[in-house]
Amino acid sequence: MDLTRELQPRVDVFNKALASFLAKGSPTALYDAARHLPMAGGKRLRPVMSMLSCEAVGGKSSQVLPFAIAIELIHNFTLVHDDIMDSSRLRRNIPTVHIKYGHPTAIIAGDLLFAKAFEAMHELSSHDAIFKKVEYGLTQVIREICEGQQLDMEFEQQPVVTVDAYMEMIRKKTAVLFRCASGGGARVGGGSSATISALETYGEALGLAFQIQDDYLDMSSDVETLGKDIGNDIRNGKKTLIAVHSLTHATGREKKLLQSIFGNKQASDQDVQQVFHLFQDLHSIDYAQKTALHHNARAKEALERVDASKARDILTVLADYAIRREK
Amino acid sequence: MDLTRELQPRVDVFNKALASFLAKGSPTALYDAARHLPMAGGKRLRPVMSMLSCEAVGGKSSQVLPFAIAIELIHNFTLVHDDIMDSSRLRRNIPTVHIKYGHPTAIIAGDLLFAKAFEAMHELSSHDAIFKKVEYGLTQVIREICEGQQLDMEFEQQPVVTVDAYMEMIRKKTAVLFRCASGGGARVGGGSSATISALETYGEALGLAFQIQDDYLDMSSDVETLGKDIGNDIRNGKKTLIAVHSLTHATGREKKLLQSIFGNKQASDQDVQQVFHLFQDLHSIDYAQKTALHHNARAKEALERVDASKARDILTVLADYAIRREK
Repeated sequence: MDLTRELQPRVDVFNKALASFLAKGSPTALYDAARHLPMAGGKRLRPVMSMLSCEAVGGKSSQVLPFAIAIELIHNFTLVHDDIMDSSRLRRNIPTVHIKYGHPTAIIAGDLLFAKAFEAMHELSSHDAIFKKVEYGLTQVIREICEGQQLDMEFEQQPVVTVDAYMEMIRKKTAVLFRCASGGGARVGGGSSATISALETYGEALGLAFQIQDDYLDMSSDVETLGKDIGNDIRNGKKTLIAVHSLTHATGREKKLLQSIFGNKQASDQDVQQVFHLFQDLHSIDYAQKTALHHNARAKEALERVDASKARDILTVLADYAIRREK
Repeated sequence: MDLTRELQPRVDVFNKALASFLAKGSPTALYDAARHLPMAGGKRLRPVMSMLSCEAVGGKSSQVLPFAIAIELIHNFTLVHDDIMDSSRLRRNIPTVHIKYGHPTAIIAGDLLFAKAFEAMHELSSHDAIFKKVEYGLTQVIREICEGQQLDMEFEQQPVVTVDAYMEMIRKKTAVLFRCASGGGARVGGGSSATISALETYGEALGLAFQIQDDYLDMSSDVETLGKDIGNDIRNGKKTLIAVHSLTHATGREKKLLQSIFGNKQASDQDVQQVFHLFQDLHSIDYAQKTALHHNARAKEALERVDASKARDILTVLADYAIRREK
């Protein structure tokens, strides 16, 4: 299957609906700031997943568009605010909202996208009971994303984080939104409880695999030269699954080495290389890859509880894409 | 009528419901940050107004509590984010959230309060159609508050702002939430369209009067010594209705004087005094007071379209309180 060929028509439909919903407005600077990131494109993985989940239960993807817009706007609102917190200067190869429009307008632009997400939901033609259930799901997802983002920030200050705590953090920060996208899509499409539940499991497992793969790609790319990303992640002490695994499994001399270099902004290239080899020796990179594969398998297993369809086939390929994509 | 005696039992009921809904949670720092401002008290004007509006149409104030909580949490979330944008250090006589918990956690805490507001709505026992209408109203109110906050920030950079533009800004930034509180309370209470509309007008007019009175109190207090607030407002070039009126009505020498001192952080006490006298000479302080009284009268007129009740009487007195209160 040519995944891009299957996804692109849906991405195009979604982008058209989003552009129409997220119109320009007044004050101009606020609406320009709010549109800056969502209109800059992106893979649209989450909305497309909600469209495919809707189709997989027999619904039409057009009926789920308002929900797909809500999901994408929530994703974007959290990115706008996260970029402020992390002082990130670039996102999707363009300046972040606070760099282009200033911090105050970026905070409001994020809030506006949040409000617009809940406004979008009102264009759903679903029964009120379905509307309420899906809308309640959004409130819980945002609560969990907030909790996950706080945990992520707290982890940066902690010397050791357990693998379980790390997995719970990325579940909240990343996976619940995927879970909501697929489960909500199935609910809007009129799926049974069992099918909705299966697609929720699919989304969450795919989200976990997706996030772990992000860490893995950072570490596996450019091994020979130890690319800039790897050096940065090690010098900044970024708590990825790989780092967390090594930090909890290192003992004796290795532990001391890790503690002295990991998170040390002045670490030399040689130091960084030592830590990287430690990650290899402690099988932490393997562990991350195996964990990603495990959740990829869980995602595909969950799909077996959904009736066969073209949409289900695409979702299966999408699960593999989530762990095979290049950066 | 002893207004405090009438309001206090409702405030107590509301505070109990809010404390129960906004429980502690994990991560602790995030929930502590989110609870910091809403649990610090405050007059609870908006939730009490929604309770009284519900009662005024024959409903029970207990049935509107989830909506009242949503309104108060939205109010608080905007304050948490506004305080970051304005670099405010104190609110309700305690350190602002970002001062106590840091900027990143304050941004997330605001987002969490936003999500919790929409979560609270799901405890309403109203029919789904009423739930949806009221919930849609909240999305529109937040959109307008975002627009109002952006306008407020932009006005600070503009040499002249018209009175109409200023009124539109405070309508969005302040009055729409009051409008939503009273109108939504009436809707949840089962009020007719005409009564809901009357109570919406009441809330919006009261909100405008309330905001203008804030400006007026800053300027009228401590006239002899020109208190710190007045000096700060003039040196910071704060666009209040009084300032906006003077800036649009001053000509010739007066205009030049205003332009050189208003917004000049290095202005001397004598400079500030000159501007203050200019505000008096141009009748700008009178104008603000008359405008507040005009909207106070509109609020009370609107109540005449609501059947007589104890709750309506309290709302009438509340309208007067909004422009008579001291700081």
